[in-house]
Amino acid sequence: MEYIDLKECILADNAGVADQVRELARSKGFFLWNIMSSPGAGKTTFILSAIERLSKEFKIGVIEGDIESTVDAEKMQRCGVPTVQLRTGGDCHLDAPMIMKALERLPLEELDIVIIENIGNLVCPAEFDLGADLPSMLLSVPEGDDKALKYPLMFSVCKALVVTKIDCAQLFDFNFEALALNTRRLNPDLKIFKVSAKEGAGMDEFCQYLSNEVKEKIKRG
Amino acid sequence: MEYIDLKECILADNAGVADQVRELARSKGFFLWNIMSSPGAGKTTFILSAIERLSKEFKIGVIEGDIESTVDAEKMQRCGVPTVQLRTGGDCHLDAPMIMKALERLPLEELDIVIIENIGNLVCPAEFDLGADLPSMLLSVPEGDDKALKYPLMFSVCKALVVTKIDCAQLFDFNFEALALNTRRLNPDLKIFKVSAKEGAGMDEFCQYLSNEVKEKIKRG
Repeated sequence: MEYIDLKECILADNAGVADQVRELARSKGFFLWNIMSSPGAGKTTFILSAIERLSKEFKIGVIEGDIESTVDAEKMQRCGVPTVQLRTGGDCHLDAPMIMKALERLPLEELDIVIIENIGNLVCPAEFDLGADLPSMLLSVPEGDDKALKYPLMFSVCKALVVTKIDCAQLFDFNFEALALNTRRLNPDLKIFKVSAKEGAGMDEFCQYLSNEVKEKIKRG
Repeated sequence: MEYIDLKECILADNAGVADQVRELARSKGFFLWNIMSSPGAGKTTFILSAIERLSKEFKIGVIEGDIESTVDAEKMQRCGVPTVQLRTGGDCHLDAPMIMKALERLPLEELDIVIIENIGNLVCPAEFDLGADLPSMLLSVPEGDDKALKYPLMFSVCKALVVTKIDCAQLFDFNFEALALNTRRLNPDLKIFKVSAKEGAGMDEFCQYLSNEVKEKIKRG
C-alpha cells in the first residue's frame, strides 16, 4: 500500500516557498510581520494604530487576508499605505505562495515593513510558515486567559503576543498571571505586551519593540 | 490528466455519515444541537447556563470538541451531564465520523438533547454537516457586528445565532441593526437571540425557543 500524507506534502511545499519569501525580504531589505488572531480580536484597529506611530519612522505596506470582503483593506487604503487584498474564497489561512503573489504587487524597494493581517483563526494559520521575521498574535481580553491551553501551536510559533482590549480587563476578570504561566510552558521566549488600541495604552511600548526589531534586521543586512 | 478534488471527496464522505447521524438521532429520539463560534465567544459558559435551565425538562448529554485540553469537558462533568471529550489533535473542526464515534459512548436511550461544543473557529466547522437538528453559532459582542461580511458561510448554515456578552454592548459600540442587516442578506430565516450567559439576560427566551424545537421534533417522531 502506498501511503501519502497530504498534509505533510502541503507543509513541505509551503516551507520551500517560505524560504524564498525570507530571501526576498532579505534582498529587498524589508521586515515581514505576520499578525494572527481569532476573528474580532482587533487586528485591524491594532494595525491602524501601529501604522500611525510607525509611519513616522518607516515606510509600510499591508497584505490583507480575508475569506470574503474587502472592508479591512479599504480601511488600510484610506490611511494611505500600499495595500494588497488576498481573498482566499474559503481557505481558513494564508500560505507562503499567497504571500509571494501579494509581495509581487507591492513597491518593495520603497518599503521598510510589510504587515500581513492573517485570516481570523487560532488554528490553521499557525501551521503555515509565511517567511515572516516576526510571527505574532493578538489575544483580546474578552476571549479569556485560557486560550494557550486550547490552541497551543499558535502560542508556540509566535515571537510576540499582544493582549488587546485591556481597557475592559476588569469586566472580564482576565488573569494576566494565568496567561503568562500557560504561555511560559509552551514558549518561554514569548514577548507579551498589553495594549488598548482604541485608547492608545501600551501602543508606544509595543511600537518601540517593533522599531528595534526592524533596525536590528537592517543592521544585520 | 486525472483531477481529484480532495475537498469534494472529504465533504461527500462526511455528508454520508451526517445522514447516518440524523437517522440515529431519529431512531433513538434525541435532538442534536451543534454550537459553533470563534475562540472565546463564550460557548462553555453559555452551555452551562443553558443546561441549568433545560435540565429541569430534558436529559442532556454533551460532546466536547477540542484540539487539546479537557478543561471544558471537566466543567461539564462537574455539572453532572454525561460528557464525551473529542480531542482532534490539530484538526480545526469536528466532522460527522467524529460525532458518530462520540455518540456511541453516550447513553442515547436516556437522552433528549445532545449538545456539541465545536472547535473555536468561524471557518471550517461551517463546511462540515454533523447531522444536527440545530446548527447554531455564538457571536460575542467584543468580536464586532461585521463578522457576517467576513465569515459568510458560517452565518449561512446556521438556523440560530446567539449574540453573547450583551452586558458589554455599550463598551464596544455593537450595532445590532447592522448585524441583522448583514445576516438577513445571507440567511433571511436566521433566528437571532441576545444573551448574557454570565448575568442570565435573554437565557430564558433562548431556552424556550430550544425547548419548542425539541418538542416539535419529538412530536414529528
